[in-house]
Amino acid sequence: MMNFELTREYIDSLRELIEAKNETAISEILEGLHPADIAEVYEELSIDEAKYLYFLMDDDTAADVITELEEDDRKRFLESLPSEVIAKRFIDKMDSDDAADVLGELDDERQLEVLSHIEDVSTAGDIADLLNYDEDTAGGLMAKELIKVKETWGIPTCLRSMRRQAEEIDEIYYVYVVDNDGILKGTLSLKRMLLSPVDVLVKDIYNSDVISVRVDVDAEDVSNIMDKYDLVALPVVDSLGRLVGRITIDDVVDVMREEAEKDYQLASGITEDVEASDSVWQHTRARIPWLLIGMFGGILGSRVVSGFIDVLDEHPQLAFFMGLIAAMGGNVGIQSSAIVVQSLASGSTSLDSTWKKLMKELGISLLNATLLTILIFTYNRVVGADLALTMTVSAAMFSVVVFANLFGTFVPLLLNRLKIDPAVATGPFVTTLNDIIGMFLYLTIGTLFFSMIG
Amino acid sequence: MMNFELTREYIDSLRELIEAKNETAISEILEGLHPADIAEVYEELSIDEAKYLYFLMDDDTAADVITELEEDDRKRFLESLPSEVIAKRFIDKMDSDDAADVLGELDDERQLEVLSHIEDVSTAGDIADLLNYDEDTAGGLMAKELIKVKETWGIPTCLRSMRRQAEEIDEIYYVYVVDNDGILKGTLSLKRMLLSPVDVLVKDIYNSDVISVRVDVDAEDVSNIMDKYDLVALPVVDSLGRLVGRITIDDVVDVMREEAEKDYQLASGITEDVEASDSVWQHTRARIPWLLIGMFGGILGSRVVSGFIDVLDEHPQLAFFMGLIAAMGGNVGIQSSAIVVQSLASGSTSLDSTWKKLMKELGISLLNATLLTILIFTYNRVVGADLALTMTVSAAMFSVVVFANLFGTFVPLLLNRLKIDPAVATGPFVTTLNDIIGMFLYLTIGTLFFSMIG
Repeated sequence: MMNFELTREYIDSLRELIEAKNETAISEILEGLHPADIAEVYEELSIDEAKYLYFLMDDDTAADVITELEEDDRKRFLESLPSEVIAKRFIDKMDSDDAADVLGELDDERQLEVLSHIEDVSTAGDIADLLNYDEDTAGGLMAKELIKVKETWGIPTCLRSMRRQAEEIDEIYYVYVVDNDGILKGTLSLKRMLLSPVDVLVKDIYNSDVISVRVDVDAEDVSNIMDKYDLVALPVVDSLGRLVGRITIDDVVDVMREEAEKDYQLASGITEDVEASDSVWQHTRARIPWLLIGMFGGILGSRVVSGFIDVLDEHPQLAFFMGLIAAMGGNVGIQSSAIVVQSLASGSTSLDSTWKKLMKELGISLLNATLLTILIFTYNRVVGADLALTMTVSAAMFSVVVFANLFGTFVPLLLNRLKIDPAVATGPFVTTLNDIIGMFLYLTIGTLFFSMIG
Repeated sequence: MMNFELTREYIDSLRELIEAKNETAISEILEGLHPADIAEVYEELSIDEAKYLYFLMDDDTAADVITELEEDDRKRFLESLPSEVIAKRFIDKMDSDDAADVLGELDDERQLEVLSHIEDVSTAGDIADLLNYDEDTAGGLMAKELIKVKETWGIPTCLRSMRRQAEEIDEIYYVYVVDNDGILKGTLSLKRMLLSPVDVLVKDIYNSDVISVRVDVDAEDVSNIMDKYDLVALPVVDSLGRLVGRITIDDVVDVMREEAEKDYQLASGITEDVEASDSVWQHTRARIPWLLIGMFGGILGSRVVSGFIDVLDEHPQLAFFMGLIAAMGGNVGIQSSAIVVQSLASGSTSLDSTWKKLMKELGISLLNATLLTILIFTYNRVVGADLALTMTVSAAMFSVVVFANLFGTFVPLLLNRLKIDPAVATGPFVTTLNDIIGMFLYLTIGTLFFSMIG
C-alpha cells in the first residue's frame, strides 16, 4: 500500500456511491484504506454520509477512524449517536488512553452514561481511572495496556503470560518487570529473550536501568525525556513506584507537535489552536485578541507621539524615521525572546544565570547596534539629511536596539519564573511595548538634538 | 534510574576528580549515567577533560555519547582524534544511520580515511552507501540494520535467522517480509508470531498492508507519514521496490523538532540554527541579516513618508497614528502567513483552491477590519480628534487590515509554488513590506481627507 492522496474527484465519486447506496463498492473502497485516510475522507463528508460509511466498517476500523478524527469533527459526530453505540462500537474497541481522550471530550453526564454501557467492568474502571488525570500530565498521556512479568518467573511462564496479555494490545515495545508488590523493577527486552537459554529466570536477565516518570509529571517534560533518551515507550509509576501505565511515542509526537504549534502561533499573534480549515468565525476569534492588544498599544503610542506635537510641528522630517525605529525595536525584541523561549522549551540545561544571559545579550546587542548605527548614519550623510536628524536617528537606533535586546531577553525569563508561558513574550504584546518605547526614545532624543543643533 | 539533573556543583566536583585523575570514582559515576546525560556533562567540559573521560568509557557507551553530542561539539572533538580511533572506537560501534550522519560532518578526505580503518567491509560499504543520500531524504534518515525474513520460510527458520540478525540491532520493532528478489512484501508482527502455531509459513501470516517510502522521498514527508499513520518504524525501498533500509521514529522526532524550530526561528527573524549557548558572534551572524532587511525596509518607508512632507508639515497630528497603522499591517500579515505556513508544513490535505483560501481570508479580514475600525473611530470621537484625522485613521485601518490579510495569505502560497520555504513569509520581510504599504495607504488617505475636510 502506498501513500493515499485525497482529491476532489475521489470525494465526488464516493458521494455518488453513497447516494446510490452501493454497499459492495463502498465496502471495497474502505477495505483498501488506512483508518487515518478514512478520517481524512470523513472530514469532507456530511454527518449523514459519514454515518452511512460507519455502519459499513468493522468495529475495529470504526474505532480507529474515530480516534484519528479532528476533535471538532469527532465531537459533532458522537453527539449525533446514542451512548450505547458509542460505548459498544467505539470506546470498547479503543486502547484505554484513546478511550479516555475521546470520552474526556464529552460532558460529565454523557461520560457516565457511556461508561455504564461498557460490559467489562475492569475496562470501564481503567478508563474512568484515566479520566481523573489532567491531560497535560504523564497520567493523561498513558495507556493501561502493557505487558508485565514478575521477576521471579521463568521464561516459559513469561511466554505463556505474554501470549495472554498480548491479545489485548497492538504492538509490544517493552516487557516490564515488577516485583510482588507491583513495583517497577526494570524491562525485559524481546531481543534478550530471543537470545537467552530457556532455563533462566526473569531476574537474571532483566535490565534494571529503566527510566520511568511519575503520573504527575508534566507532558512537556515527558516529551523532553523521551526525546533525549530516544525512547519508544516510557513506563509510568505512582507515588509508591508501582507500575500503572505506559506512554508510547506516538502520543508524545502529538504533544511535541502541539507544543511547537502553540509556540509558533503565539509568536504569530494567534491565541487559540486554529487550522486553515476552521470556520471564518473561529479564525476571527483566534486572531482578534492580539490585534486588540496591538491596537491599544498603538493608541498608547499615539498619545506618546502627541506629547511631542511641538517638535513635530517644527521639524516634520522627524516623522520620516519613526516607523523605522519602532520596527527595529520590535524585530530585535522578537529575536531575543524567541531564543530564550526555545531554550526554555527544549529544556536544554544551561547553567548560566539570568544575569549571565543578560550580559551575553548585552554583548550581542552592542555588536548589532554598532553595525546598524554606522549604516544608518552613513545613509543619512550620503542622502544629505540635516545633522540634527542624522544624529537623532543614529542615537535612537543604537539605544533602541540595545534596549529591545535586553527587554526581549528579560521578559520571557521573568514570565517563566512567574509560571506563565514565556512564548507569550514573542507575541504582539512585547513587540508593541518595544514599538512604543522605541518611538518615545526617538522623539525624546530628537527634541534634544533639534534644540541643540537644529 | 530517575531523571538526571545537571548542576554547577556536579560539574565542579567532576572536574576536581578529573584533575586528581581519580579513575575509580569517575568510572563509577559514568556507569550510573545514560549516554545522553554524559553528552550533557561533556558540553560543559574542555576538550582535554572530555578526552580523559572518553578513554574511561566502554566502546559502546563512548559511541552513544558521540551520537548524542551537539554537532559543533562533536566536530571539535573528532577533529582532535586520529582517524583510526574514530573508526574503531566510534563509527564501528554505531548504527549505520548514526555512523553516516557523524561521518557526513567530516570533510571528504577524512571520511575516506576513517572508512579505510573499518575492518568489516560490508559495514564500511553500508555506511559509504548511506553517505550518498541527501540528508533531507528518506535515504538520508534510514539505517541499514533491520530484520527481514523470506515469505517462503517457516516459523523455526524465521526464529533462527532472527536470532542471528537480532545480535546486530538494538530494538526490534518490525520483522520485514521480502520475496526472493528482495522486494518488500509486508511485515510480520512479533505478536502474531507469539500467537501462531509453529507449523505455518511466513506467507500465511504476514501482513501485506505495509506502508513504505522510496529512498528519494523528502524528510518532511517521511515525518508527516509516520505521524499520520502512527508508525514506529518505516521501511524504505528503492525504485524497484526492494527493501534497502528502515527509518525509526527517534530520527523522525529529530526532523520534526528541527522543522518546527526552523519555522519558529524564521518567524522570529533568525536565519541560522542558533541556540542560547552559542557564542556572541554566532548570535550576531544569525540575527543581523533580517535586521538589515528590516532596516532597508525602514529606510524605504522613510522615503515614502518624506514624499508626504507637505501634508505632514501642515497637519503634524497625522504622525500620531502612523505607528499604529504600520504595526497593525505587520501584525495582521504575520497571522495570516502563519496559518498558511502551518497548514503547508503539516501536509494537511485541504481541497480548497488558492482562490477559495483567499476568499475565506477576505471574509475573516472584513470581520476583523470592521470591528477594529469601529473601535478606532469611536476612540477618536471620544477623545475629540478632528474629523479629518478620525476619518483618515478609520479608513486606513480598514484598508490596511484587509490588504495585509490577503497579502499575508498570498505570499506564502506563492513562495510555496516557487519551491521557496513559505516560512520566510512570516519573517520580517513581509512584515516590513506591510509596514511600508500601511504607511503609504495611511498618508495617501490622509492627504485626501485633509484636502476635503481639513
